[in-house]
Amino acid sequence: MRLALALARRGEGTTSPNPTVGAVVVRDRTVIGQGFHERAGGPHAEVGALDEAGDRAAGATLYVTLEPCSHHGRTPPCADLILARGVCRVVCAMADPDPRVSGRGIERLRRAGVEVTVGVLEAEARRLNAFYVKHRTTGLPFVILKLAQSLDGRIATASGDSRWITGEAARGRAHLLRSRVDAVLVGVGTVLADDPLLTVRGVAGRDPARIVVDSALRTPASARVLGPGRAIVATTEGADEGRARKLRERGAEVWRLPSAEGRVDLRALMAELGRQGFLSVMVEGGAAVAASALKAGLVDQAQVFIAPRVIGAGLGAIGDLRVEKVAEGLRLTDVEIERVGDDLLYMARVVSP
Amino acid sequence: MRLALALARRGEGTTSPNPTVGAVVVRDRTVIGQGFHERAGGPHAEVGALDEAGDRAAGATLYVTLEPCSHHGRTPPCADLILARGVCRVVCAMADPDPRVSGRGIERLRRAGVEVTVGVLEAEARRLNAFYVKHRTTGLPFVILKLAQSLDGRIATASGDSRWITGEAARGRAHLLRSRVDAVLVGVGTVLADDPLLTVRGVAGRDPARIVVDSALRTPASARVLGPGRAIVATTEGADEGRARKLRERGAEVWRLPSAEGRVDLRALMAELGRQGFLSVMVEGGAAVAASALKAGLVDQAQVFIAPRVIGAGLGAIGDLRVEKVAEGLRLTDVEIERVGDDLLYMARVVSP
Repeated sequence: MRLALALARRGEGTTSPNPTVGAVVVRDRTVIGQGFHERAGGPHAEVGALDEAGDRAAGATLYVTLEPCSHHGRTPPCADLILARGVCRVVCAMADPDPRVSGRGIERLRRAGVEVTVGVLEAEARRLNAFYVKHRTTGLPFVILKLAQSLDGRIATASGDSRWITGEAARGRAHLLRSRVDAVLVGVGTVLADDPLLTVRGVAGRDPARIVVDSALRTPASARVLGPGRAIVATTEGADEGRARKLRERGAEVWRLPSAEGRVDLRALMAELGRQGFLSVMVEGGAAVAASALKAGLVDQAQVFIAPRVIGAGLGAIGDLRVEKVAEGLRLTDVEIERVGDDLLYMARVVSP
Repeated sequence: MRLALALARRGEGTTSPNPTVGAVVVRDRTVIGQGFHERAGGPHAEVGALDEAGDRAAGATLYVTLEPCSHHGRTPPCADLILARGVCRVVCAMADPDPRVSGRGIERLRRAGVEVTVGVLEAEARRLNAFYVKHRTTGLPFVILKLAQSLDGRIATASGDSRWITGEAARGRAHLLRSRVDAVLVGVGTVLADDPLLTVRGVAGRDPARIVVDSALRTPASARVLGPGRAIVATTEGADEGRARKLRERGAEVWRLPSAEGRVDLRALMAELGRQGFLSVMVEGGAAVAASALKAGLVDQAQVFIAPRVIGAGLGAIGDLRVEKVAEGLRLTDVEIERVGDDLLYMARVVSP
């Protein structure tokens, strides 16, 4: 199963909206087939592994990181293939979290007389497919809040300077993160202040969709974030149609969403992204959007680069959360620390109150 | 030498204003004597080690973490004792950094025909005696800035609540730090807001002196920080004498110091503390004092406890540093990370611009 998980990882960042899956066929303690799911629409991991095993798959054991599918999607059901090839035992790390399909693949195999074990290295498999699990169980994308701050929690000086808080290695790592998510999201303030591209640079990987949260449509038609590639400007129902048209002419989608306190309701935005098959969104700032997403309980994980600098009074990374008591502050768990160049990467799960 | 350094560490926190020193006597590859400096005024490390070795010290090698003294202080010169016992070789980790004595002990031994080696594990020995080295080379105490903050750099919510940002383990560790320094220092704002004791609780160790930076003598005579034990209220020359008298009646010392922009000049305060033999001071806040100390280039080390919490808008740990560009922010080097309970302890050297 460790090998299957390692294989699955090779598909990270390219399988969305599908999960990443790895599969290994074993016979007489020997690996006779390997496969992983490489991209949405492409063959499933089981297919590659079984094809490699060929005739020898009959009587073999299949290790797979996720329950094999039993429905006709863009490819035929893997459960049928497994039965056709005569596999006698299937070991899954986890059942499919999608409530519409979960357990059916397992049931189909068991009914056909295959011995099925579920739950081997399940925690690891769930972590690997955290985006997919969140999306299939809640309909919402997995949301990462990414920040780059000084030790004292500043993302810019009082005069607005923010270049460069973190070092080159951390910026490279941030681009790698970007290449792994389906979309990155910023507030219009960040667009006006920095005119960012939000593309993946310096590392291999596809560009995520770009989302600008812009209640009053202040995004200039010349903003670099609008293209090329998919760009979405999320605004409120009352926003000016003339401005919306200009943005559409630049190739951007303009989504009119319900508002909460005059601003785009981020939960409605996430729900729409989920409906459109976005498994993951990385919130890249600024402080107001970060605070709104945290307050709404939408953030699953924080990835905070901490630079070895002290800036003092300046712009805080996170805006007003309306926290009165320290004990009401958002809690972080499962903290992991990694050094990235001279900076520190602080990763944690965000516990919604 | 590793053993000598380990012995020296046993004196940490109790030898000030003396350095911590360890000594080992070795003959025929066997340790025949060990000693360490336990407290100011007590016998030096060399004395203990040589006494334990007795007659067998003749012809032996002495390993000592700091150059042996050659002057009459509260105890007779160790160099004389080493010669009297017939030691034929001395290995020191480092010369005494005090420019008034540095090299004289070594010279005295060499002139008498003893083979002397200096610089074995010197970096480690310097770290061990960082307080002493700073004091003897600059006349100023070694200054640690200690903070306890949320991940986003907040020490309190907007409404002022600050209990408890960090967990019990981190608070215990902070008390251990306190027991290791000669003084802790806070601004009057912290006294007025929290009325802290600033004593050592929950761990063994002596209480440091308490220093309140209080330009206008707003410290109430009832403040718990004033006693028992040594308390110093550092104020400006123009501060009200009636208030000063009341604080003195409570047992506190009131120091009138030059001011800078209407506030106590922290450099003048540190210089006076250095003159009075304080080797180390821990700045425990608040934000204004922390910023003043950092701006004045007085802080040697930052020890920042980072709690797994996000507070959003609130009180920042560090006040205005008048930093315009990120690149002008204070740099931190030699970053070390340690987990303390659920919190993270971020330790770094502060590079003064």
